[in-house]
Amino acid sequence: MLAIIITIMVLEMKVPHGAELATLQPLIPVFLSYILSFIYLGIYWNNHHHMLQASRKVNGAILWANMHLLFWLSLVPFVTGWMGENSFARWPMFLYGCVLLGAAIAYYILSRLLVSHHGHESELAKAFGPDFKGQISIVFYVCGIGGSFLHPYVSAGFYILVAAIWLVPDRRIERTVASSGE
Amino acid sequence: MLAIIITIMVLEMKVPHGAELATLQPLIPVFLSYILSFIYLGIYWNNHHHMLQASRKVNGAILWANMHLLFWLSLVPFVTGWMGENSFARWPMFLYGCVLLGAAIAYYILSRLLVSHHGHESELAKAFGPDFKGQISIVFYVCGIGGSFLHPYVSAGFYILVAAIWLVPDRRIERTVASSGE
Amino acid sequence: MLAIIITIMVLEMKVPHGAELATLQPLIPVFLSYILSFIYLGIYWNNHHHMLQASRKVNGAILWANMHLLFWLSLVPFVTGWMGENSFARWPMFLYGCVLLGAAIAYYILSRLLVSHHGHESELAKAFGPDFKGQISIVFYVCGIGGSFLHPYVSAGFYILVAAIWLVPDRRIERTVASSGE
Amino acid sequence: MLAIIITIMVLEMKVPHGAELATLQPLIPVFLSYILSFIYLGIYWNNHHHMLQASRKVNGAILWANMHLLFWLSLVPFVTGWMGENSFARWPMFLYGCVLLGAAIAYYILSRLLVSHHGHESELAKAFGPDFKGQISIVFYVCGIGGSFLHPYVSAGFYILVAAIWLVPDRRIERTVASSGE
Repeated sequence: MLAIIITIMVLEMKVPHGAELATLQPLIPVFLSYILSFIYLGIYWNNHHHMLQASRKVNGAILWANMHLLFWLSLVPFVTGWMGENSFARWPMFLYGCVLLGAAIAYYILSRLLVSHHGHESELAKAFGPDFKGQISIVFYVCGIGGSFLHPYVSAGFYILVAAIWLVPDRRIERTVASSGE
Repeated sequence: MLAIIITIMVLEMKVPHGAELATLQPLIPVFLSYILSFIYLGIYWNNHHHMLQASRKVNGAILWANMHLLFWLSLVPFVTGWMGENSFARWPMFLYGCVLLGAAIAYYILSRLLVSHHGHESELAKAFGPDFKGQISIVFYVCGIGGSFLHPYVSAGFYILVAAIWLVPDRRIERTVASSGE
Repeated sequence: MLAIIITIMVLEMKVPHGAELATLQPLIPVFLSYILSFIYLGIYWNNHHHMLQASRKVNGAILWANMHLLFWLSLVPFVTGWMGENSFARWPMFLYGCVLLGAAIAYYILSRLLVSHHGHESELAKAFGPDFKGQISIVFYVCGIGGSFLHPYVSAGFYILVAAIWLVPDRRIERTVASSGE
Repeated sequence: MLAIIITIMVLEMKVPHGAELATLQPLIPVFLSYILSFIYLGIYWNNHHHMLQASRKVNGAILWANMHLLFWLSLVPFVTGWMGENSFARWPMFLYGCVLLGAAIAYYILSRLLVSHHGHESELAKAFGPDFKGQISIVFYVCGIGGSFLHPYVSAGFYILVAAIWLVPDRRIERTVASSGE
C-alpha cells in the first residue's frame, strides 16, 4: 500500500500548460514537497516492510494498529499537495506536521503491540529495543507543529531533521535479519 | 486490490486553493466520509485477506464471486466522494448504502461458496460457522437505505453501527489461524 | 497490474455536482461502460493469473509478449471513459473494439509462446490445447469493429457476446490445476 | 511499484470531449509519448524484477539506492505528460532526458551496490558483468539532452535508440536464472 501512496502522490504535480522552462517555476515548491514526502514514505516503506517481515504472528489489535498507520500515511499526498501549492505557508506546514505526527504515533503503537505480542525475549523485541528514534521523532514533530506559528521555515527545519535521522535505515532490524541468515 | 481502492479514494479529497485553515472547512464532510469508508474498506481488507489465506482451493464460481465483491468495493470511492461533496444529503446516503449492501451480499455469497467448496467439516467452514455478523449487517444496511427517506442521519447511524460491529476483526478466523500454528 | 487498471478505471466516473438522483443520469452510460470493462478486465485477470501460475519458465520473448498484453489492457480505462462519455457513439465503439482486439491478439501470442516454450507435451500445452475461445473472440471483435459502421449497437452486441463466452473461466486450466493437486 | 507507475501514466491521457475521430488528433503526441514511456518502464520492470530476484541479501545502502531509482521513475508520468501535451517541444524533451538519465544513473548505482554486496564471484556479479548497456545508455541520454538544443527530434532519436538497445531483455540475467534451474 505504501508503494501505491508514493506513486499517486505524483498526480498532485499537475502537468503545466506551456512548453517553456518558466512554466515549471510555480511547480518548484510542489516538487520540493514531493521530494520530502517521498523520503518520508520511503523510510516508512523500508522500516514497515522490515517490521512485518520480522513478525511471526498477528492479532486483531495489530491489524488495526497497522490500518491506523496506513490511515495517516494515506493522507500524506493530500497534505503534500496543499503544502506545495501554497509554497510552505503556515497552515499547510501545521497540518503536514499533524499528519506526520499521527503516523509517528501510529508506528510507535504498532511496534509496541508487535513487541508485546512476540514476547520481550523475541528477536523482534530485541530488534526494536528501546525505540529512541521513534520517540525523538514524536518530540521533533511537536516542535515542528508549534514552530509553524513562529515561521514556516522552523517547521520545515524540524521535519527535515526527522527525515535525516531516519534516512539511515533501522540498522537494528537489518542486523537481526542478517543474523537470522537471510 | 483493496489496498489500491483505499489509496485512490484519497484522490477524491481535492487540494483546496488558499492556504488558510478556513479553506479546509468545506472538506470536513469529505474527510468524515473518507474516514468511514477507510474503516469499511479496512474491515474488508482484513477479513477478505484472512478468508483467502484460509482457502485451500478455488473454482470458477468462487473466482467470480470474488470479482463480484471487488466490483461493489471498487464503487466505494465514487459514492464516498458524492456523499462527502454533498454533506451527507439524502440520495448520496441512499446510494452509499446500496453499494455497501451490494458488497455485504457479495461477501456473504463468497463465504458460502468457499465453505461449501471446502466441505462443512473443513477448518474454513468452522471458522465461518453461522455468519451472524454478515447477516445482521445486511439487515442494518437495508434499514440504513430505508432510513435515508426519514433523515440522512438515520442512515449514517446504521452505517456507523455496522462498522462498529465489524471493527473487532473476525476472531473466529484469527482463532483458527492461530490454532493451525501459524 | 490488472488490479490497478481495474481500480483506476473508476476514476473516469467523475463525482457529479448536485445531490439529486437526476444528477446521476448522465453517468448511466459511463456506468454501463464501467461494468462491461470491469467484466473484461476481470476475465483477463483470472485467466492471466492462471496462465502465469501454470508457467514454469519464461524467456525474453514471453516477457515482452506479456508487456504487449498489458499495454493494450492499460488503454482500457481511456477507451471506456471515451465510450461512456459519448453514450456509445460510433467512433468510441470502434476504438473500444480495436483495443480489445489488440488485447485478444496479444493474449493469443502470449499463450502460444508459453506453450511452445514449455513443449507440446507439457501440462500447460494440454491446458491451452487448441485455443478455440481465443480465436473466436478475435473474429467477434473484428465483427464488432466493422459493425460500428452499421450501428453502434451492433458493436455492443458483439462485445457483450465475447464477454459472455469468457465469463465461464477457463475450465481447462482449472482442471489442470486441480489435477496437479493444488 | 513499477506496475503502478505504468498504470497511472494512462491518467495523463485525458478523455476528449466529443465523439468524432478528429477529437483524438491532439492526443496523438500524448499517445506516442505514452508508448515510449511504457516501453522504458517495461524495460525497467523486467530488468529490475530480475535483479531483485537474483539478489540474496540487501543492506541499508541498497534499499536507498532502490528508492533513488524509484524516485526518478516516479517522475516519468509527469514528464511524459508534459512532453505529450507540448508535442515534443524543446524543454519537455530536455527534462524527459534528465529524468531518464537520473533513472539510468540510479540503476547503475543499484547494480554496482548489489554486485559488491554479493561478492565479485557471485552469480549476480557474473550476470551483471561489465555493464556495457548501462554505460552506453548514460552516454546516449547525455547526447539526447544536449541534442534538444539543436532540435527536439535529435533528442527523440537518442531516446528511441536507448529503448531499442534495451528492448532485448538482459540475456545475461536470463541465462543465469535459467542455469540455476528455475
